[in-house]
Amino acid sequence: MTSGQKAYIAGFLDGDGCVMLQLIRRHDYVLGYQIRASIVFYQKTEYKDFLIWLKSKLKDGYIRERNDGISEYTIVGFSPVGRVLSLLVSHLRLKKKQAKLALKIINKAPKEGKKYTPKLLLKLAKEIDRFAQLNYSKKRKHTSIEVEEYFKSHDLLSP
Amino acid sequence: MTSGQKAYIAGFLDGDGCVMLQLIRRHDYVLGYQIRASIVFYQKTEYKDFLIWLKSKLKDGYIRERNDGISEYTIVGFSPVGRVLSLLVSHLRLKKKQAKLALKIINKAPKEGKKYTPKLLLKLAKEIDRFAQLNYSKKRKHTSIEVEEYFKSHDLLSP
Repeated sequence: MTSGQKAYIAGFLDGDGCVMLQLIRRHDYVLGYQIRASIVFYQKTEYKDFLIWLKSKLKDGYIRERNDGISEYTIVGFSPVGRVLSLLVSHLRLKKKQAKLALKIINKAPKEGKKYTPKLLLKLAKEIDRFAQLNYSKKRKHTSIEVEEYFKSHDLLSP
Repeated sequence: MTSGQKAYIAGFLDGDGCVMLQLIRRHDYVLGYQIRASIVFYQKTEYKDFLIWLKSKLKDGYIRERNDGISEYTIVGFSPVGRVLSLLVSHLRLKKKQAKLALKIINKAPKEGKKYTPKLLLKLAKEIDRFAQLNYSKKRKHTSIEVEEYFKSHDLLSP
């Protein structure tokens, strides 16, 4: 990808894209929660070709046509989201803080195949609270307080 | 401005900006109508600094705080809009067609100090109809048909 393409995509992400870090409830996980990182681009389905071009540049992710005439291109997962944010971060302006904090959280997360300790997951959950503030998330479902209470009630924080 | 900055701004314009060509009714003009070219960028007033940065790069235009928490940075006029679109057009993707057509219309318009003939204004009004189709304008007020009827009723099209 050229530097101009990275700058263009960063501008588009600042204008109409979304970087998310979310706590997801997982009833089948020992720690009860998972961290999900994602980047989403939206466009009228009419201009889906644009999203296909974006995907050809950013490689990962998938494109989904919604029922309301909008298509979404979503990149999910620490590794692809971390890679894409690393490409764009120096060009971002409005979402630079989010991108930097997301990269920090992603880099602190256990590498593939490794497991979270309750302590680390709780620490990252607190960083995600900060991230949500940057994003002005109004519909947040899960917070670090909830994670902490879950850990306490399941005796996961005792040394 | 660096090439990266142009690419970034083009991406942002594609994501969240607006290029407009409009027919404006002018009761004090002999031909009754004026063509207005504009580029608008929007942002939460909270991020007005971003618009100030944009203006420092694009030079022309003005920033206005609306009552609803959104600020607008508007560039109006053939000469500044033509200049800015010339800077961005090679980097644009979603709005490249609009930008090219706008530049074509701007270049056909009379130079400063020169006057429109009714024939030329009507010709450009027809190009603006095409432009509005590209923009999916739903709230258009004036069309080339209206301009033509105005010219006919005011005997402006007779040779």
